[in-house]
Amino acid sequence: MNVSGVPYRTIWLADNGWAVSIIDQTQLPHRFVIVDLVSLEDACVAIKSMQVRGAPLIGVTAAYGMALALRLDATDHALERASEQLIAARPTAVNLAWAVNRITTEVKGLPVVERAPKAYQLAAEIADEDVGLSEAMGDHGKDLIADIHESRNASKPDQPVNILTHCNAGWLAAVDWGTALAPIYKAHDAGIPVHVWVDETRPRNQGSRLTAWELASHNVPHTVITDNSGGHLMQHGLVDICIVGTDRTTRAGDVCNKIGTYLKALAANDNSVPFYVCAPSSSIDWAITDGSQIDIEQRGEDEVRKVDGFDSRGELVEVTLFSDDSPIRNDAFDVTPARLVTGLITERGVAKATEAGLEELFPDKIL
Amino acid sequence: MNVSGVPYRTIWLADNGWAVSIIDQTQLPHRFVIVDLVSLEDACVAIKSMQVRGAPLIGVTAAYGMALALRLDATDHALERASEQLIAARPTAVNLAWAVNRITTEVKGLPVVERAPKAYQLAAEIADEDVGLSEAMGDHGKDLIADIHESRNASKPDQPVNILTHCNAGWLAAVDWGTALAPIYKAHDAGIPVHVWVDETRPRNQGSRLTAWELASHNVPHTVITDNSGGHLMQHGLVDICIVGTDRTTRAGDVCNKIGTYLKALAANDNSVPFYVCAPSSSIDWAITDGSQIDIEQRGEDEVRKVDGFDSRGELVEVTLFSDDSPIRNDAFDVTPARLVTGLITERGVAKATEAGLEELFPDKIL
Repeated sequence: MNVSGVPYRTIWLADNGWAVSIIDQTQLPHRFVIVDLVSLEDACVAIKSMQVRGAPLIGVTAAYGMALALRLDATDHALERASEQLIAARPTAVNLAWAVNRITTEVKGLPVVERAPKAYQLAAEIADEDVGLSEAMGDHGKDLIADIHESRNASKPDQPVNILTHCNAGWLAAVDWGTALAPIYKAHDAGIPVHVWVDETRPRNQGSRLTAWELASHNVPHTVITDNSGGHLMQHGLVDICIVGTDRTTRAGDVCNKIGTYLKALAANDNSVPFYVCAPSSSIDWAITDGSQIDIEQRGEDEVRKVDGFDSRGELVEVTLFSDDSPIRNDAFDVTPARLVTGLITERGVAKATEAGLEELFPDKIL
Repeated sequence: MNVSGVPYRTIWLADNGWAVSIIDQTQLPHRFVIVDLVSLEDACVAIKSMQVRGAPLIGVTAAYGMALALRLDATDHALERASEQLIAARPTAVNLAWAVNRITTEVKGLPVVERAPKAYQLAAEIADEDVGLSEAMGDHGKDLIADIHESRNASKPDQPVNILTHCNAGWLAAVDWGTALAPIYKAHDAGIPVHVWVDETRPRNQGSRLTAWELASHNVPHTVITDNSGGHLMQHGLVDICIVGTDRTTRAGDVCNKIGTYLKALAANDNSVPFYVCAPSSSIDWAITDGSQIDIEQRGEDEVRKVDGFDSRGELVEVTLFSDDSPIRNDAFDVTPARLVTGLITERGVAKATEAGLEELFPDKIL
């Protein structure tokens, strides 16, 4: 998407044709910094330090990490070493291991001189595939927004469709377009007037920091609100549709996403606001029916107690918000039951949030 | 309540018998500072600068402000001037005007020499009356907590009753005990094991800053959570009861309270967790039936965009969290419809959140 009018992906091949450029996301929203990865070690550091984040982007970075490694040494030993190092960088990231294994499998049978070029080619393919997935979801979701615009605003065509989103499921978490934000970008680019309510998303503020930055950079009208506000706005008719992402979706349509998603789904339900989840098939766990079975990660106290920002001299400082005398519990995700989800926007279309709904679109997966 | 083992009110007569001591709440939770008000001007500044906050406490401070003024000059002219200055300090505060007018009415007919002593006496009475109201609500609410403890924890008497609260409706907003926190203090002091989930309460963080400080100071077990977390905790059976305050209650039982209260009420309803509101009769607006008629104050952007805390050198600094490129909407309150409220804890007992329920306890008011 655009940054100051210039289109970007989150990862691309540098002008020299072999280094890999990324946006250093640890600097956002404060600074827009592009970093060139020139070695396997650089790729590992970028993944570990969260310069790149989001499952798809981590996978593509790992794929390019393989290419960078093989460029210097494409022997079997080096191939194995690169694979191990990358997978160890964030061991729980499914896309990472998947991308690394795909490259290993495909290059292993090739002569050594052909391995690096093939790895670069595969990495580019994986990136393009992800963009294709995002675009497909974006197009399906855009139709939902267009329908609202047509039905509600016939008398006032300039009146925007108000969309509420939580956390960041934008292009920064993918290669381009994103998941939950893809329909918004598609609608905006198609000339449909949209306005986005951006949940701050405590404790890590991915909404006010990443989603708001993305939308501002692409000139999409938006307003930041506290996580407490969405229900009130829905009561007053100020939200036409909610669109959020998902970290894991059960085969029955329960959605595990950033903590607080469930509260917004309840409010949407109470106010008859449609609540959609952008769920690429890679997020669907076909082995689980009941979302309450999902283990929820508990994270550290400091994410809640401390925050960073610019002081009056323009320096980035971390401050402590309240006393150590009070303990903190910091659950990272919650589960929104399928009954509160109007539909799942997938790359193959919009499914009902039920086992039957998903089966209709993914008969090949659900068996 | 206790601070480091010493019992405090939020306002009291200093040792010299005429100055008025307050806790400077602008310094909390970072520093516990006691300030002595020695003049009408001091009282006005304390109210304006929010060294004192909360409707009842503002009223008592104004009452003592009248006494401080009359101590120096008790003529009719001075009486009128003091009344005008205090009411202008925070013109929308109902309790403030009520307290000032009560004193004016009662001292006007007295000889000049008797006016100041009478004003001191009335101020003390107003303070004691407020403590009485809080204690009455506290006792009624404590019974609810005791019932849960008895019914749920018969086999494990040490297992605490888990109570979720939002914002700060504690003793800092009153003279002592508070409203929503009064039942918790009463239960704790009676030896019933309690544990409080404290919503951070963005954007002003009254939960993590004031409620958490109060509870820590009185040694009540508690844990700070983000505003996003409560629904998830309720889904997992970790909340036995919600108790919150109210800024304004309709005669039908709709509750206007800090933004985000509605979301917690929805989650409580969805998980069959009882949701109680501590509503002194002074908070009930008998003229309004429908909460959606209440105008909601919109506050400034800086409350969301900026926050203060201690940096690594121990200095209190304000930092900017995200870019000016993104506008902010900051509604201060929302309305929880009566259908989501299990009961209203008033000074006369627990009422159903309906017109009939309130009429039963307040037949003298509802006419």
